[in-house]
Amino acid sequence: MQQQIESIVLPNGLAIVSERMPDTRAAAFCWLLPGGSVYQQPGKAGTSTILADLLFRGAGQRSGRELLGQLSLLGVQNEESITPAHLVLSGVTQARNLVETLPVYADILRRPHLPEEEFDAARSGLEMTLASNEDDPRQKLTLELRRRTYPAPWGIPADGELADLPAIDMDDVRQLAKSSLQPHQAIFSVASSLALNDLLPTLEKLLGDWQPGEITAPPLPPTTGGYDHLTHESQQTQIGIAYPAADSTHPDYLKAWAIVSILSGGMSSRLFTEVREKRGLCYSVSANLHSLKGAARVICSASSQNERAQETLDVLLAELQRLKLGIAGEELARCKALAKSSLVMAQDSTSSRAASIARDWYQLGYVRTLQSLKQQIEDLTVSDLLAYLDRWPLANLQILTVGPQPLVIHFNQ
Amino acid sequence: MQQQIESIVLPNGLAIVSERMPDTRAAAFCWLLPGGSVYQQPGKAGTSTILADLLFRGAGQRSGRELLGQLSLLGVQNEESITPAHLVLSGVTQARNLVETLPVYADILRRPHLPEEEFDAARSGLEMTLASNEDDPRQKLTLELRRRTYPAPWGIPADGELADLPAIDMDDVRQLAKSSLQPHQAIFSVASSLALNDLLPTLEKLLGDWQPGEITAPPLPPTTGGYDHLTHESQQTQIGIAYPAADSTHPDYLKAWAIVSILSGGMSSRLFTEVREKRGLCYSVSANLHSLKGAARVICSASSQNERAQETLDVLLAELQRLKLGIAGEELARCKALAKSSLVMAQDSTSSRAASIARDWYQLGYVRTLQSLKQQIEDLTVSDLLAYLDRWPLANLQILTVGPQPLVIHFNQ
Repeated sequence: MQQQIESIVLPNGLAIVSERMPDTRAAAFCWLLPGGSVYQQPGKAGTSTILADLLFRGAGQRSGRELLGQLSLLGVQNEESITPAHLVLSGVTQARNLVETLPVYADILRRPHLPEEEFDAARSGLEMTLASNEDDPRQKLTLELRRRTYPAPWGIPADGELADLPAIDMDDVRQLAKSSLQPHQAIFSVASSLALNDLLPTLEKLLGDWQPGEITAPPLPPTTGGYDHLTHESQQTQIGIAYPAADSTHPDYLKAWAIVSILSGGMSSRLFTEVREKRGLCYSVSANLHSLKGAARVICSASSQNERAQETLDVLLAELQRLKLGIAGEELARCKALAKSSLVMAQDSTSSRAASIARDWYQLGYVRTLQSLKQQIEDLTVSDLLAYLDRWPLANLQILTVGPQPLVIHFNQ
Repeated sequence: MQQQIESIVLPNGLAIVSERMPDTRAAAFCWLLPGGSVYQQPGKAGTSTILADLLFRGAGQRSGRELLGQLSLLGVQNEESITPAHLVLSGVTQARNLVETLPVYADILRRPHLPEEEFDAARSGLEMTLASNEDDPRQKLTLELRRRTYPAPWGIPADGELADLPAIDMDDVRQLAKSSLQPHQAIFSVASSLALNDLLPTLEKLLGDWQPGEITAPPLPPTTGGYDHLTHESQQTQIGIAYPAADSTHPDYLKAWAIVSILSGGMSSRLFTEVREKRGLCYSVSANLHSLKGAARVICSASSQNERAQETLDVLLAELQRLKLGIAGEELARCKALAKSSLVMAQDSTSSRAASIARDWYQLGYVRTLQSLKQQIEDLTVSDLLAYLDRWPLANLQILTVGPQPLVIHFNQ
């Protein structure tokens, strides 16, 4: 599992992080720009997504059509997304085309046309996406639970809000472009067979004189928890529970991760066994660890038929409380085995590695190697996990249900 | 792109296909058993899914709990699915655990307990999954379009039908287990650093005396096409169009594939440009080539706001008709570039390779190497594609819409 990680920070602030994967002919890259949803003006959620769309409608010497045609000719399969902290431009192609791809992205970042006449098309595309999410109760649960457990602006739906769209105009987009499309706090990551030195001269030529701006992320207030219900006429009730856990910058992070794996990793996990297999209460139940930089949540969710929703919620809460009563050695052994096979798989995927090293750089300022992760997971003991559960008691739960009827919370915060 | 493909067919009929990927430490495997949805009794759609669930509730010396625990300890991330032709058991783990995983699967296939007392839990789990699909209009479009364009039993929803569930009983499951869990027409594929010879002694010991049955897939009648509308109160109308194309066993297959890529591969593709970017008609539009063994369809789908649904359908049909008027050399060049980067990426993924070599073996009786695919794609010319469009004219269209109002079809079959 020897990994070759290289990194450099240009004088203007742009961090470049590379993982060399000598056995692959694919190349994946990620641009993290400080233009995520927390940087939008209040009441204008959606500006980031519209900006990401407009970036590909012409840049430098190329019209939008020429730009997209050029990326296709280079075999680039690109994807854009918005997280709370970042506007993310990622892509995969053949390693042999990677160097030629860089000037196209340099144009997109430094010389986008942002054509005003296409603003309406971009906004109406987003409107249709958001409207279609409205019809999906599982999607709604995820977004609304996050909104409640992470105080604003960190919890607002990253893609945007339907109600905000009419208020957004081209000036908002230009302002966000100005503050976010600059090298200060920006990260470029790449995973391929190339060494950093194969790319650096080109990157320095294209981006060395990119002028940095100043940008500071808004603070993230603590959560208090609570219960909320959204009425939705359907056969199924969606149930969500979120509560604080150690985030990825915290020394306890892997313990939080192991706890969640014991709850929900694989078909022997507690939630799958207790909620689904034994009681047949619902067809989907899961727990995930969701981490921002400096704050994380365990997020449990379940979909259940309405008449069994109360029992599902009761069992979920009971399972969360039962954790501190003890963890079997075999549960931890299973969690470690699944983690190791996941690490082995992650090692084969350029796009997974490019995303991971960029995220590590942002959250930690360095890259965790898979070898060190594996070792730390190997070293975990049941007492470590129980001590973690003492330090991070089940508290400040945010519970949300979406369905015809609210439920009763049998739990004292 | 040198690939090492090995295969052997045991005397009892079981085909074993292996791709050696020396650079990875991951291992992926696929069991294709002739127990897909076409083998269910008429009016009992769901039997295959219930069987797949019950297979993991105990086998050989292990209870269900022990079985799942053992798979987790081996780091196996397993996944089961039903296609028209197959009951598919797949998984990934570390290559070092692969040999130990084989006896567990041999138990599952040859000595499953199929506990009657857990039948209700398995069926009610499926009921909840299918009920939740009912709420999702995009899912509904996909399933109902397939049902209409592929005559029964090939077009029925592979996972099952809500209305059929009450009619299914344990005898149906046992009967399907008997006919499908046997080596005749079964395929086992694996992609890992191991050679076939590293696995063969174990496989022969475990499965050499597995007794074959006899099984024949039902015939697949031709389609006639038509228009249908399903009323659904929503803001969006779902539009689907399906029509016959060269299937994966046909010499014209890659031409069909290239046509679909020109329609829908990447952001420069025709549908994305004409329907979404230029006219802003919908937020999602795509075309895919869906191939069974011996029959395939181009399947186009779009989601549009109700008031723009008619125009979206009109533009979609116009784009399909416009294909035969000409294809630009640059369109084909982009399609080739994207195909090559996809092939390079597929080469890194054990699970993608294990699935591909199993499917190739089933559909073709041999494995297409990525090198030969690449060469055949490289050799395609615009005249090849236009000649294909002559041989496979746009006909027998099956159109389906899901939304508040039916649309008008401006197209003469």
